Amino acid sequence: MRIIKANEFKLAREVEYGTPEQNKAVHDILEGVRTEGDAALLRYTAQFDKAELQAEQLRVTEQEIHAAYERVEPKFIEALRRAAANIRGFHERQRRNTWMDVQPDGTMVGQVIRPLRRVGLYVPGGKAAYPSSVLMNAIPAQVAGVPEIVMVTPASTGGKEGIDPYILVAAAEAGIREMYRIGGAQAVAALAYGTESIPPVDKIVGPGNIYVALAKRYVYGVVDIDSIAGPSEILVLADDSADPVYIAADLLSQAEHDEMASAILVTTSRQLAEAVRSEVERQLETLPRRAIAEQSIRDRGAILLAENDAEAVETSNRLAPEHLELLVEEPFGWLGRIENAGAIFVGPYSTEPVGDYFAGPNHILPTNGTARFSSPLNVDDFLKKSSVIHYSKEALLRDGEHIMTLARHEGLEAHARAVQVRLEKEGKRP
Amino acid sequence: MRIIKANEFKLAREVEYGTPEQNKAVHDILEGVRTEGDAALLRYTAQFDKAELQAEQLRVTEQEIHAAYERVEPKFIEALRRAAANIRGFHERQRRNTWMDVQPDGTMVGQVIRPLRRVGLYVPGGKAAYPSSVLMNAIPAQVAGVPEIVMVTPASTGGKEGIDPYILVAAAEAGIREMYRIGGAQAVAALAYGTESIPPVDKIVGPGNIYVALAKRYVYGVVDIDSIAGPSEILVLADDSADPVYIAADLLSQAEHDEMASAILVTTSRQLAEAVRSEVERQLETLPRRAIAEQSIRDRGAILLAENDAEAVETSNRLAPEHLELLVEEPFGWLGRIENAGAIFVGPYSTEPVGDYFAGPNHILPTNGTARFSSPLNVDDFLKKSSVIHYSKEALLRDGEHIMTLARHEGLEAHARAVQVRLEKEGKRP
Repeated sequence: MRIIKANEFKLAREVEYGTPEQNKAVHDILEGVRTEGDAALLRYTAQFDKAELQAEQLRVTEQEIHAAYERVEPKFIEALRRAAANIRGFHERQRRNTWMDVQPDGTMVGQVIRPLRRVGLYVPGGKAAYPSSVLMNAIPAQVAGVPEIVMVTPASTGGKEGIDPYILVAAAEAGIREMYRIGGAQAVAALAYGTESIPPVDKIVGPGNIYVALAKRYVYGVVDIDSIAGPSEILVLADDSADPVYIAADLLSQAEHDEMASAILVTTSRQLAEAVRSEVERQLETLPRRAIAEQSIRDRGAILLAENDAEAVETSNRLAPEHLELLVEEPFGWLGRIENAGAIFVGPYSTEPVGDYFAGPNHILPTNGTARFSSPLNVDDFLKKSSVIHYSKEALLRDGEHIMTLARHEGLEAHARAVQVRLEKEGKRP
Repeated sequence: MRIIKANEFKLAREVEYGTPEQNKAVHDILEGVRTEGDAALLRYTAQFDKAELQAEQLRVTEQEIHAAYERVEPKFIEALRRAAANIRGFHERQRRNTWMDVQPDGTMVGQVIRPLRRVGLYVPGGKAAYPSSVLMNAIPAQVAGVPEIVMVTPASTGGKEGIDPYILVAAAEAGIREMYRIGGAQAVAALAYGTESIPPVDKIVGPGNIYVALAKRYVYGVVDIDSIAGPSEILVLADDSADPVYIAADLLSQAEHDEMASAILVTTSRQLAEAVRSEVERQLETLPRRAIAEQSIRDRGAILLAENDAEAVETSNRLAPEHLELLVEEPFGWLGRIENAGAIFVGPYSTEPVGDYFAGPNHILPTNGTARFSSPLNVDDFLKKSSVIHYSKEALLRDGEHIMTLARHEGLEAHARAVQVRLEKEGKRP
């Protein structure tokens, strides 16, 4: 793991736009499903997921969900339920109410805050099917009060036996009852445009491969989408009080995600830097996903030496990491200076997996430096606001002149007249 | 104005992606400014805005701002200040605080909520330079606590004399002190990437022409952007209690915006429908922007006859209008049934221009049916959240097993080990 000066380091930022061929394929699939509905959806499912289905078979049955519970060990269900309870509790604190500002003259302005009506959750197939991500995507929508949450996942998710029972159990625990065995760009199209079997949604969330990501970009505007996640990142801010064993383990927990993941240590201590470097080497040796973690550490990992604490914080704020660990003495004293980070893990027992799985905050976080302006997935992402404006007659008589002045300055005479016809009727002739 | 059945009407939805030539031009300008900085910015400003400037002249001076106040009539400043006070008051109600959930075992989870650090506001040139939009974009950012708000507007905004003094006054009233005379895709590039003279921002808001809109799409990800506005829309839900003169005036206040604007009346009353139709004809005759309004009413306007109140509401929810007026008896009785609308104007004195200019709610609203999932511009748009996770030793000892169970199920052994090394050190050997 390289050790370099903090001010010389720049993170590689990538955006994946897809090849022209991938874009063309996605465009064709979207148009196919939009114009032909179920017929195209079934055709693409046979072609890409190797599943020959009838329209009636698209929806996962109650019996399958029950059967899934039989196939999953109780220890897993117990852990999942506790995690779900924590996630629900954390997101319930984010709920917001409609409010109105009521004035003595009868004027009222406010915001009506409502859940979206119907949300689609995409769950990828194969090894990327994470029960924890099902909870993290579905629970905020459920807490927001979204009445219809629907999950889609490729027919092949669990191999030949059908959909992974762990995914079905996680979805059921998160309160989802409507699930379809579809995936890829065709599933995104079905959610966005609707088909005979699948009513359209208002928003699509959840990760997927490049085809899914491109399809989400294309349907944005017809429906809302979540942000498109980049490779995962951790930045550990540590001083001599930190245990190099913990730091190395935490860096590797990020590095094992994929070869593009970044694991960065920022410290003012050369001694710590070197201790962590050897500890990373040592821990790497026995990791099952060693090849991935090793490449990530080699290509994207770094230990950054800062001149002082101020430069260490400045470096972290500049990189705006997805995950930030504060492994320093008095970590809460540092919190106020952290400007940009998706999730901040404070102190030695708050290792990143605590947040990835269990503590309650969402693990869907801004990547690629977007923590400068983006937030973790949260309840607000499933709410919409409508402004409410109720003016009384007295208020319009009082303010009408000002409104006409502003409208006429902008050359919008019909705006002024909409006020004027009312003032005239009330006998106030401007 | 055509009168048709409510269930037969569909709004034309448009998305403007630009021609290949426009996309190419924008791409070249963005790359030019990104790689060459000020040199390219000045070159494009000379080419497109016909303003030959030095880098030192890009920033608007304090003297120019003072001079602008001399050129604007006191009546306008008075109206603007009252509007700004209302807008500020409405948005202050939206402020949010950092919160923490502190547990007896020392565990803490919460959200740190912070303003973005630096925001850029684009103000278009020519006739589209609206002081009211300056207030509506800048005040929510200011209320959010954004420390640096910067405005850009083409050098040519006010014709030969330089930037429109009304725009300068509106910006100053909204608290903006940093303003640059740049416009077009080159201004968006300067805000996103920064140049020698202009530090980069975290978010760009504000409307612009097709080049500006395309440039914003391209830089999204490097910075945040606001939504890209479609043509403006109004839907009036009215019954026999409503005054056809008011309805016609309100429909026309939308129609005068541009030929693509939609003005729709939904009612169960054929008598009202016909009265509004003649009244629209009558009021059109004396409108200064008659040609625009007439074309909008002809091409995009409609009076929709609903079978009953339920169908009227359903039609409104289906169209998800940007502006909705409830001109019915007991309008508050209807409010709860409105699912999708950017802003809801309740009762006969709440004509749309009250909200466009004055009442306090934002006039930057979701268009094109996106009120199904989007909200008016608001304080949240200028805030970012970071999750905070602080686990105590006791909590990790208690929950560690569950976390490892979930991580190992997902094949992420290094995640499990990050917990395990801590449990082992505490003498709890899993």
